[in-house]
Amino acid sequence: MSAPRIQVWALDGIAEVVAGDDLAAIIGDALAADADGVIDGDILVVTSKIVSKAEGRQLAASDREDAITAETARVVAVRGTTRIVENRLGVVGAAAGVDASNTPEGTILLLPVDPDASARALCAALRERFGVRLGIVVSDTLGRAWRIGQTDIAIGAAGMRVVDDLRGGTDAQGRPLVVTVPVVADEIASAGDLVKGKATGRPVAVIRGLSRYVTDEVDTPGARTLPRTGEHDMFRLGTDEAIAMGRQVGYADGFAAGRASRD
Amino acid sequence: MSAPRIQVWALDGIAEVVAGDDLAAIIGDALAADADGVIDGDILVVTSKIVSKAEGRQLAASDREDAITAETARVVAVRGTTRIVENRLGVVGAAAGVDASNTPEGTILLLPVDPDASARALCAALRERFGVRLGIVVSDTLGRAWRIGQTDIAIGAAGMRVVDDLRGGTDAQGRPLVVTVPVVADEIASAGDLVKGKATGRPVAVIRGLSRYVTDEVDTPGARTLPRTGEHDMFRLGTDEAIAMGRQVGYADGFAAGRASRD
Repeated sequence: MSAPRIQVWALDGIAEVVAGDDLAAIIGDALAADADGVIDGDILVVTSKIVSKAEGRQLAASDREDAITAETARVVAVRGTTRIVENRLGVVGAAAGVDASNTPEGTILLLPVDPDASARALCAALRERFGVRLGIVVSDTLGRAWRIGQTDIAIGAAGMRVVDDLRGGTDAQGRPLVVTVPVVADEIASAGDLVKGKATGRPVAVIRGLSRYVTDEVDTPGARTLPRTGEHDMFRLGTDEAIAMGRQVGYADGFAAGRASRD
Repeated sequence: MSAPRIQVWALDGIAEVVAGDDLAAIIGDALAADADGVIDGDILVVTSKIVSKAEGRQLAASDREDAITAETARVVAVRGTTRIVENRLGVVGAAAGVDASNTPEGTILLLPVDPDASARALCAALRERFGVRLGIVVSDTLGRAWRIGQTDIAIGAAGMRVVDDLRGGTDAQGRPLVVTVPVVADEIASAGDLVKGKATGRPVAVIRGLSRYVTDEVDTPGARTLPRTGEHDMFRLGTDEAIAMGRQVGYADGFAAGRASRD
């Protein structure tokens, strides 16, 4: 296998996106104007912010706390004003993805309703326009447990594989690789963030050289398959919350036993 | 600010690394032979595996469980045979970074003793040889809470900034960016993984186009600054472990109260 070589750059010429905009047309025009053109196997990383804006997911900033509550499927941990929650998409993070940066003054943005569906719509329209197979990643910026700061991850995807499942493959010594499942959609979102930046007004990155992840079909298992939740989640509650829950149960059991011990 | 454009590729010609090898010489020779040469501001992503091998961090595979215990600073959560621990470097993950893939038959690999120091040594030697400012990331493959699969992160770094601290900067609307701290070293490690792959025998990636993160000095705050541990860690114990701990304390308190209630 020859070494892949990738190039990553951000598209110029995408102006402020507003509710009702045809995002596929806007991104398509920026692609058409790009000096490097579009080739089969290119992957576009699209900041979820502009998907949300086009889909009219904007609210008044004064509704922020209520919006976080509404977007929350389950509270995982709370400390001070920080709420770590599982959002509607199964993604665990602060503030349920409700965003107040890079939004018009006095407004907040909710995440797209269904980022995989948004990715599919973009993917189909852009494939149709350019006549090549493109992949789409819709990215969001997220904190992580046990690490400072943030990285970009995939919250939507279409037309591509989101993981490079090496189970069944072999390592360089020919032994089976049993555990490693690189989440390429997240790695691609991170690579895109390195050129998009947070403050540059360039919300779309092109990644060229990863056509091996791009599929013939548009409708692929998307980023919705990436969260690990429910019984498989060893960190389904924050430590303080779990201790408090255990203490309550233990206290009741202990109290009953204590009373009984005197009989 | 003009849009950065990055290129990412893996170096060819790095043979199996063994204990005592001069890794800077090996990587330097591969760089010297590379068609794209080396330019000021290039960043190399070096798989921790080859750093470990060169540093002789190899053990017999039969010692795996003991090795995990020895590399563990603190157990975070255990389920079945999976041990999530904080390792000596402050990094939380499965098996303390003890690795059994892509290692010689019958052996396991421990993480480098001090990956930031390893990065500094590589960085200094390669800067000296090529007469340009290079940055180094030492990468490892790691699972995440709440997400399936793995991505590559930085466990060592030198000659570059590991975060792009935008606090004090402004968003595209000119408002202060108060929260976002992109961990570029992790994003760079992820980008490198997209070309290195797990099974290709290409353990070093070159990233060109991010010279804004490369510093004049070699000795920079490294990847050791990236883990979030201790009191700031809302997930310092697994949920099951925390419930059990709370239950034990609650039971004792409840028992005493139950007894007292009969007095």
